[in-house]
Amino acid sequence: MLSYISPLGIVEEVGEAVKSVKRGDRVVVPTHLYCGFCFNCRRGRSASCLTVNPGSYGAAYGYAGMGPYRGAQAELLRVPFADVNCVKLPGEPHDELEDDFVLLADAFVTGWHATELAAVYPTSTVAIFGAGAVGLLAAYSALLRGAAEVYVVDMIPERLEKAGEIGAVPINFLEGDSVEQIMEVRRRNPSLSGSLAPGDERMMGVMCGIDAVGFQARDREEPAREHPSQVIEDLCRLINPTGTLGVAGVYVGRDPEAAEKLGKRGHLDVPWATLFRKGIKVGFGRTDDERYTVHLRNMIVSGRAKPSFVVSHQRALRVSLASRSLPQGSTGGCEAP
Amino acid sequence: MLSYISPLGIVEEVGEAVKSVKRGDRVVVPTHLYCGFCFNCRRGRSASCLTVNPGSYGAAYGYAGMGPYRGAQAELLRVPFADVNCVKLPGEPHDELEDDFVLLADAFVTGWHATELAAVYPTSTVAIFGAGAVGLLAAYSALLRGAAEVYVVDMIPERLEKAGEIGAVPINFLEGDSVEQIMEVRRRNPSLSGSLAPGDERMMGVMCGIDAVGFQARDREEPAREHPSQVIEDLCRLINPTGTLGVAGVYVGRDPEAAEKLGKRGHLDVPWATLFRKGIKVGFGRTDDERYTVHLRNMIVSGRAKPSFVVSHQRALRVSLASRSLPQGSTGGCEAP
Amino acid sequence: MLSYISPLGIVEEVGEAVKSVKRGDRVVVPTHLYCGFCFNCRRGRSASCLTVNPGSYGAAYGYAGMGPYRGAQAELLRVPFADVNCVKLPGEPHDELEDDFVLLADAFVTGWHATELAAVYPTSTVAIFGAGAVGLLAAYSALLRGAAEVYVVDMIPERLEKAGEIGAVPINFLEGDSVEQIMEVRRRNPSLSGSLAPGDERMMGVMCGIDAVGFQARDREEPAREHPSQVIEDLCRLINPTGTLGVAGVYVGRDPEAAEKLGKRGHLDVPWATLFRKGIKVGFGRTDDERYTVHLRNMIVSGRAKPSFVVSHQRALRVSLASRSLPQGSTGGCEAP
Amino acid sequence: MLSYISPLGIVEEVGEAVKSVKRGDRVVVPTHLYCGFCFNCRRGRSASCLTVNPGSYGAAYGYAGMGPYRGAQAELLRVPFADVNCVKLPGEPHDELEDDFVLLADAFVTGWHATELAAVYPTSTVAIFGAGAVGLLAAYSALLRGAAEVYVVDMIPERLEKAGEIGAVPINFLEGDSVEQIMEVRRRNPSLSGSLAPGDERMMGVMCGIDAVGFQARDREEPAREHPSQVIEDLCRLINPTGTLGVAGVYVGRDPEAAEKLGKRGHLDVPWATLFRKGIKVGFGRTDDERYTVHLRNMIVSGRAKPSFVVSHQRALRVSLASRSLPQGSTGGCEAP
Repeated sequence: MLSYISPLGIVEEVGEAVKSVKRGDRVVVPTHLYCGFCFNCRRGRSASCLTVNPGSYGAAYGYAGMGPYRGAQAELLRVPFADVNCVKLPGEPHDELEDDFVLLADAFVTGWHATELAAVYPTSTVAIFGAGAVGLLAAYSALLRGAAEVYVVDMIPERLEKAGEIGAVPINFLEGDSVEQIMEVRRRNPSLSGSLAPGDERMMGVMCGIDAVGFQARDREEPAREHPSQVIEDLCRLINPTGTLGVAGVYVGRDPEAAEKLGKRGHLDVPWATLFRKGIKVGFGRTDDERYTVHLRNMIVSGRAKPSFVVSHQRALRVSLASRSLPQGSTGGCEAP
Repeated sequence: MLSYISPLGIVEEVGEAVKSVKRGDRVVVPTHLYCGFCFNCRRGRSASCLTVNPGSYGAAYGYAGMGPYRGAQAELLRVPFADVNCVKLPGEPHDELEDDFVLLADAFVTGWHATELAAVYPTSTVAIFGAGAVGLLAAYSALLRGAAEVYVVDMIPERLEKAGEIGAVPINFLEGDSVEQIMEVRRRNPSLSGSLAPGDERMMGVMCGIDAVGFQARDREEPAREHPSQVIEDLCRLINPTGTLGVAGVYVGRDPEAAEKLGKRGHLDVPWATLFRKGIKVGFGRTDDERYTVHLRNMIVSGRAKPSFVVSHQRALRVSLASRSLPQGSTGGCEAP
Repeated sequence: MLSYISPLGIVEEVGEAVKSVKRGDRVVVPTHLYCGFCFNCRRGRSASCLTVNPGSYGAAYGYAGMGPYRGAQAELLRVPFADVNCVKLPGEPHDELEDDFVLLADAFVTGWHATELAAVYPTSTVAIFGAGAVGLLAAYSALLRGAAEVYVVDMIPERLEKAGEIGAVPINFLEGDSVEQIMEVRRRNPSLSGSLAPGDERMMGVMCGIDAVGFQARDREEPAREHPSQVIEDLCRLINPTGTLGVAGVYVGRDPEAAEKLGKRGHLDVPWATLFRKGIKVGFGRTDDERYTVHLRNMIVSGRAKPSFVVSHQRALRVSLASRSLPQGSTGGCEAP
Repeated sequence: MLSYISPLGIVEEVGEAVKSVKRGDRVVVPTHLYCGFCFNCRRGRSASCLTVNPGSYGAAYGYAGMGPYRGAQAELLRVPFADVNCVKLPGEPHDELEDDFVLLADAFVTGWHATELAAVYPTSTVAIFGAGAVGLLAAYSALLRGAAEVYVVDMIPERLEKAGEIGAVPINFLEGDSVEQIMEVRRRNPSLSGSLAPGDERMMGVMCGIDAVGFQARDREEPAREHPSQVIEDLCRLINPTGTLGVAGVYVGRDPEAAEKLGKRGHLDVPWATLFRKGIKVGFGRTDDERYTVHLRNMIVSGRAKPSFVVSHQRALRVSLASRSLPQGSTGGCEAP
């Protein structure tokens, strides 16, 4: 049932109950572990697996409160339920797809999941707040899925440049209300006005919005200040009636460092009446890797997806991963339940 | 394009552009009017029709802020876009289906829509807060759609009795925390424990929750006091991980009478981190009559649905309708845009 | 990974890799085995499991060509991948739900699957050809899912009587063209005409059709003669434009006994132009137990479903099961791959 | 209710019941007309509109048996139900998007519809038989929707070249069994093997197949001979278990010129047992323009779609359109019902 590998690497040892993976296979292991047979996994909702996190639900390597698994950045890694959690890869370590494959462990699947939460459909218009690895890969996923227009909002020029390179429209929120900026682009640029009921101000926003920031959102007018509901407020203004909102940015139940009262209880002050009036659908939560990883691997192998464009951000990414992992050299993961 | 009728009645006159309705037809007219051809109606989202409420979206007879249509409780009614808005009925006025058909104008379709918002599926477990006409008909709809268990929460004994009569489990929130009551029923009663991953406390809530109360929710501990987020807070505790929430109760943007600060801006203090943690999907908004009315008429005609069971509440229903309509004898509706 | 049980019974022994089942648990085992982790099982398509039937796909106890598993009617049964294949049950052997639970092994899930193949939706009209255990349970499932009208076609009076008892309309095809009979019922009976565009001959058929007969269909005019395409021909006439067809009856690739040329190659002479003209969707195949069994167990436990109404057919059912199983007393199943 | 235009052009006159179109608007009119309010149009199934073709269902300009509308290739065109049937366009006649917009009348929406029939999803593998305008635009649509691999089968080199130019893999069926050719590409080329359960011969076909040829399919071994079931037979071999098949090529009910017996009755000799064994879903029929045209217009206007790449085939296209239209100079269309 268990096998020892590193998060992207070659299987070193295989437990006797494992059927589909063998020593020497190249595999990637999703950050969010699951069993494949509980009530939730049977329905593809592996992020809420009832087996891997006893007494709770959902597990991940190296997340506080998400099960007994230490960080996956280790020399050897123990993988529970290896038949579901190991996704086989072609090729050799350090080949030209290595940087793409490593993103299957977390950022690419989470970005893709964000587009599922927001029900991004072919021909839709999409706005993504947050251009970190997840936000950029959500934009990339939306374009892969056939979105007509994709806007990416952030304040860091390097990130916005990346957004532009993949075909999204970058919006710097330091330059003014991002909602107004997006609507203005849609009004002025004939090549982008197509998704409207023509000329209709009431549908000048977007059909799908994605929050890839979470509770650490910054205030629009004082960006130095945290303002946990800023992104949600902006998206509620921006999304058209009948639209959808995907919340992929993390909101924690109890954040001891949270600056505001609501944040401390995990509550948020939300424009609920706007969501009701507009008839919006909202999807929340972590990625269900069971549904995506194999498919996204195929997109990489067939050459259709090249998520490693975010890895000019390589340093930032490594740091962000490191912040929730063990020091190099130690053995990550731990006993399965 | 226009025809004169009463909300449930016989067509008296037909505009020359009307194709499918003729003088003498028995029809019902949905409260929420729509055009059938705008960007939103083409996608079945008639509650956000861009044609019938110029400068805004979505219209209804006799609702403040929802277009230039006065109440439909009138002797004669003008119906714009009659081909889409008139749903033909068999039979004669005042026959034995009259009370069922009249509910097609609003309460039955809104109750059914609530089960769509909450993505109620055959075999699901459902909890509905609020046992007014919409809440009871949401419970009835959930049972028609094959729900395994349906719980209805309210504090008025007559309403709860109705809920019990149609096969739902009534929960009186004056008798204690309704979330705990429902979980306790599920724990104790073997005939109701089936939807669980067996014996699993983490899934002891329900898969689908419906808010049929809205911003006028009452405080759980002091029921005399309004507490706008009470129902949403309870449902966030009650809904299982991977579950769904349908918000069919009305939340208004700016309520001059609202008791609390949040209510005045149309905001609500919501357990956002719980929605994220549990991976819940939330659907909001008014009923898209275009999608339901014909089908629900068919359920009534075939004898499968008998929504008039709520009409022992006949007096209350009439009053509630009257509160947003013109005095008897006047001419409701008005010019179409 | 393996555990020893009878198809509905108490677990006697559990392999060490099994996590969720233990000695003494009461379980039912689906006829169609699966692994839960292959490319198809991950997507809920367990009937095409790539693991349990090496060199082919899909397995079942006691079916020719469907893997190395002998019949499940045995004193002891070996269950591969027990975590996915064992569905836990409350209660005790031979309690009042025994007859309901036993149908979870095959007939109830297959009948339910038929309604999925035919995309039966709440308010739809459904015709089912074949009133064996699967056909009757498809009718029962359609009613549970909220169908407005359900017709069941067969020639055996006892079966048709059962159909009537559960609320379907029985149609005896010995009494005339079943398509005409159903349309005539819909035309004449006002209580059943509701699903029409009112009075519209073009939609006088049904929206969903189910073939629960398969290649052994009998000729409409000479019922003693096999006519493999008879049921499909009738359904193509009966299903309305925009409707759906579910093919749950078995069609075998090479039937040495098949009476007609087409049957021998597994081909069928089908009114393809009608399917095209009407824009019909057709779903084929065996039940994906992974998606249904737990949910249907819950329907039984909550008291909402009582599939054992077919078990007045108890003798017939036992015989039909016996025909593909080992003699009592032997050990069924076999080595897992 | 009626307005006079040419199929892609400027509105010259507007009937008084028309709300959303005015004289001077640039519009395109779909070939398949519909009303927007009948039982089928309400559900987005406009190809089976019950209003525009009295006594039958579904209408189109210039198709035999599809209503009283003569060909749309005329100087002036009468458009019934103009609010639904006229899709507004930005720009001026003969601008650089003219060739793209003209394809909204038929070929692009039909190609897109084919990908809906085949349930093409992001990351899927797709094979399209037939590289006429519809087949090429189906391939283009599949790529827009995020397919991982797209194969196009034909025998005309110019068409196959086009397929290659847009990123599909061209397969010339004169060079050998196209099923074997596609499997061989998938086996040999590591960059295309990704969609497999790795190395698995049982899934070496594709997940989605599209028939863009119809009843005039040619025999694989004697391409000069018509063999109506050849494409369906090939696709049944090629599509993987759990896959989907979209039938967008036309199959006529009674073709007086059909070469084979089956064709004359509109029947086809189909590998039905294979469809059953593999658990395939099959979608049939003409395009539901109500669901697509506005969205595809938006894809063109935003610059994401450029379907006019097929218009190097301009001559062929004009001829094919001409074959079902009136001579230039006459007035096409006719009285609406």
